Amino acid sequence: MDDDERVRQHYERRHDPTRVLALSDGIVAIIITLLVLELHVPQLAGGQTLKDAMREVRPSFLAFIITFVVVAIAWAGHRDLFSQIRRTDRALVWLNIIYMFPLCLLPFGASLISRYENDPVALRMYGFILLAIAVTRLGIWAYATGRPHLLFAPMDPQSRRAGFAVVVVPAAVYALAIIFASAAPTASLAIYGVVPILYFAGITLARTLALPGSAERDFT
Amino acid sequence: MDDDERVRQHYERRHDPTRVLALSDGIVAIIITLLVLELHVPQLAGGQTLKDAMREVRPSFLAFIITFVVVAIAWAGHRDLFSQIRRTDRALVWLNIIYMFPLCLLPFGASLISRYENDPVALRMYGFILLAIAVTRLGIWAYATGRPHLLFAPMDPQSRRAGFAVVVVPAAVYALAIIFASAAPTASLAIYGVVPILYFAGITLARTLALPGSAERDFT
Amino acid sequence: MDDDERVRQHYERRHDPTRVLALSDGIVAIIITLLVLELHVPQLAGGQTLKDAMREVRPSFLAFIITFVVVAIAWAGHRDLFSQIRRTDRALVWLNIIYMFPLCLLPFGASLISRYENDPVALRMYGFILLAIAVTRLGIWAYATGRPHLLFAPMDPQSRRAGFAVVVVPAAVYALAIIFASAAPTASLAIYGVVPILYFAGITLARTLALPGSAERDFT
Amino acid sequence: MDDDERVRQHYERRHDPTRVLALSDGIVAIIITLLVLELHVPQLAGGQTLKDAMREVRPSFLAFIITFVVVAIAWAGHRDLFSQIRRTDRALVWLNIIYMFPLCLLPFGASLISRYENDPVALRMYGFILLAIAVTRLGIWAYATGRPHLLFAPMDPQSRRAGFAVVVVPAAVYALAIIFASAAPTASLAIYGVVPILYFAGITLARTLALPGSAERDFT
Repeated sequence: MDDDERVRQHYERRHDPTRVLALSDGIVAIIITLLVLELHVPQLAGGQTLKDAMREVRPSFLAFIITFVVVAIAWAGHRDLFSQIRRTDRALVWLNIIYMFPLCLLPFGASLISRYENDPVALRMYGFILLAIAVTRLGIWAYATGRPHLLFAPMDPQSRRAGFAVVVVPAAVYALAIIFASAAPTASLAIYGVVPILYFAGITLARTLALPGSAERDFT
Repeated sequence: MDDDERVRQHYERRHDPTRVLALSDGIVAIIITLLVLELHVPQLAGGQTLKDAMREVRPSFLAFIITFVVVAIAWAGHRDLFSQIRRTDRALVWLNIIYMFPLCLLPFGASLISRYENDPVALRMYGFILLAIAVTRLGIWAYATGRPHLLFAPMDPQSRRAGFAVVVVPAAVYALAIIFASAAPTASLAIYGVVPILYFAGITLARTLALPGSAERDFT
Repeated sequence: MDDDERVRQHYERRHDPTRVLALSDGIVAIIITLLVLELHVPQLAGGQTLKDAMREVRPSFLAFIITFVVVAIAWAGHRDLFSQIRRTDRALVWLNIIYMFPLCLLPFGASLISRYENDPVALRMYGFILLAIAVTRLGIWAYATGRPHLLFAPMDPQSRRAGFAVVVVPAAVYALAIIFASAAPTASLAIYGVVPILYFAGITLARTLALPGSAERDFT
Repeated sequence: MDDDERVRQHYERRHDPTRVLALSDGIVAIIITLLVLELHVPQLAGGQTLKDAMREVRPSFLAFIITFVVVAIAWAGHRDLFSQIRRTDRALVWLNIIYMFPLCLLPFGASLISRYENDPVALRMYGFILLAIAVTRLGIWAYATGRPHLLFAPMDPQSRRAGFAVVVVPAAVYALAIIFASAAPTASLAIYGVVPILYFAGITLARTLALPGSAERDFT
C-alpha cells in the first residue's frame, strides 16, 4: 500500500459511517429483543388455568407488537437515510446518538402502556417518546440532506420534502394522541396502533408519486 | 473517486443487504443469549441442598437446549438464504423484519414451556412460534429465489423446491405437535426436541442428492 | 487470488481491528440499552396515582441520562481513537478489553446512584467507574499513538497532548467528585451531570485551536 | 460487474466467515455485558449502611471478574483462530455454534458461583462449563487447522500443537478443580481465578518460543 492510498484510507476511515451504523444496528437489535422481556409468563393463582392466565398477557402482547413495529420503522427509516450518506462528521455522529436516546427509552414506554394501558400518564409518556423519535429523526434528515459533501448525490428539494412529510405527518397524529390521552385513552392507544399502517401507505404513496431516480423511490 | 463510481456505490448501498444482515445477526445473537436468563439459580428452601434444587432447573435447561438449537437452525438457514442474495429491495427488508418477529418471541415461548412443560396451552403456543418462524422463512425464500435480479445467480426450480422441502417438512411435524398438544403433551415436547435432528438429516440428504454446483450443496 | 495477495490478506487479517471494533460496538450498544432496564415501571400503592408514582422514577431517569451520555462519549472517543489506528497487536487487543471492563460495570453504577443518589458510597463507586474508564482510555491512547506502525499516519506531539488533555481534565474533576462525595454528595452528583458539558466544550476548543490536518480536528 | 466476478463473489459469499464472526462477536458482547446483571444493588436491611451491604456484593463481583476474563480469553482465542481461516464450510459453522453453547451458559454459571461460592455443586457446574468451552474450542482448532483449503496458509504441525497446548493445559487444570470441588471448594474457586494468569504466561511463552512467521507469533 503506497502513501497516498494510506492517507486516503485514513481520511475515509475518519468520516466513515460504518461504526455509526454498527452501533445503531446493535442498539436497534437489542431494543427490539428486550421488548420480549416485558412478556411475563403468568403465575397461576389457585384454580386458575394457564389459558385464563394468558389473557392477562394480552395488553403486554399488544404493547409488544406496537413497539416492535415502531422500532422496525425507525430502523428502516434510518437505513434509508444512511443509504444516502457517504460520510459522517461530528454533528452527524452526535445527532445519531441523540436519535438513539428516545429509541432506548422505548422498552420503558412499552412496559408502561402494557401495565397501565388506560392511564393517560402512561399513554402520554409513550406518545412523547414516539414524538421524540420523529423529531430527532427529522434533525438528522435536515442536517444531512442539506450538506451535499456528506451525501452520495445531492438531494433535490422535492425528495427532501418527501423525507420530511413521511415523518411529520405521523408525528402530528402522535401529538393528537398525546393531547387526547386524558379525554379518550382508548383512542390514544388506537392511534399508536394505527399510525404504522398510515406510515406504510404514506411511503407507498411517496414511492408511487416519485420521479424515477429520486430518493423517495427507495424509501422502505 | 469519480462520479460514476460514486453513483454505482450509491446504488449498491441502497440495495445492499449488509445492514439487514447486521440487524438479523444482532437479533439472533441477543435471542440466543437471553435464553440463559430463563435459567434461574435456585433459592434453597429449608434443609434443601443445591443438588436437589438443581433438579428443578431441568425443565428450564431442556427448554434452553431445544430453543438454542431452534435459533441456531433459523440463523444457519438465514445465512444460507442470504448467501444467494446480492441485493435487497423494500419487500425483502420487510419480509426479513417479519421473520424476526416470531424469533423475538422465542424467549417467551421457551420460558412458557420451561415452567409449564406439560400444559397444552404452553406447548401449543411454543409450536405456533416455531410454525410462524417456518412460514415467514418460506416467505423470504419464495420471494427472493423467484427474483433473479436480487440473486447472485438464477436458481433452478429443483433447488427452489429443495429449499421449500427442508422447511415445510419440519413445519408439518410442528403442526402435528400443536394438534396433539392436548391429547399427548409429552409427545408434543418430544417432537420439539426431535425435529432438529430430522432437519439435520434432511439437509444432509438434500446435499447428497444435489447436483454439483446447485444451491442445496451449500445448505448448512 | 494469487499467493502474494493471500499472504497479504492473511497478514492484514491478523492485525485487522475489525473484530475489536465489532466487539466494542456490540458491548457499547448493549450497555447503553441495558440502562433502560433500571427504569422500573412503578407499582401503584393504595390510592396512589401513576402521576405521583412516576416521581419515584426521577432519580433513575437522571442516572439514565447521565450514564447514557457517559457511554456515548466513551464510544465517540473510542471511535476517534480507532479512526487513527490501522492495525492492532496483542497489547492493543487486551488494552481494549481492559477498557471494556469499567464500561461493563456502568449499568451497576447507574443502578447504585439511581437508588442511593445521596449516599457517598454509591457516588464514590460511580466516580471510580468513571475514573477507570478515563484511565483505561488513556492507556490505549498512550500505547497506540506512540507506535506509528499501528497508525494510518504518525501523530505529532501536539495532537497526542490534546488527546490526553480531553481525558485528563474530566478525570481530575471526577476525582474531586469522589473526594467530596462524603462532604457534599449533591455536588458530586452535579459534577457527574456537568462534566459531559465541559467535555463537549473542551473538544470544541481542541478542534478550534488545532492546525488544519491535525488529529484533533476530527475529535468527536 | 461481469459474470465471472459475480460467480466469484457468490462463491466467496457462501464460504465467507463474516456472518459467523458477526454472530460470535455479538454473542460474546452480550454475554460479557449480561454478567453485570448478576451484580444486584443491595437492599438495605434495618439500620444497615450501604457500605456494609456492599460487602454482600463481593462474591458476585469476584464471579463477575473471573467470568469477564474467561469470556475475554474465549473471544481472543476465537479471533486468533479465525484470523487463520479464509473460508467456512458446513461443519465449521456448526462447530462454531457448538462452541457458543457453553459460552451462553456462562452467565448462569457465574450466577451459581456468585450465590453459592463454597458449594461443590456450583463449583463443579462452573468447571464443566469452562471445560466444555475448552473442548469445543479444540474441536474447531482440530477441524480447521487440518484443512488447508479453509486457511489462508497451511499450518505447520508445530503451530497446531502449540494451539492445542494453550487450551489443553488450562482444561486439565479445570478438570482438577472439578475433581477437588467437594474436598477443597476454596481451592477450586482459586483455580478458576488463577488459570487465566497461567494462560497469559502460556501464550507469552508460545510466542517467545515460536519461529518468526509461525501462527503462534500472533496468539493473543
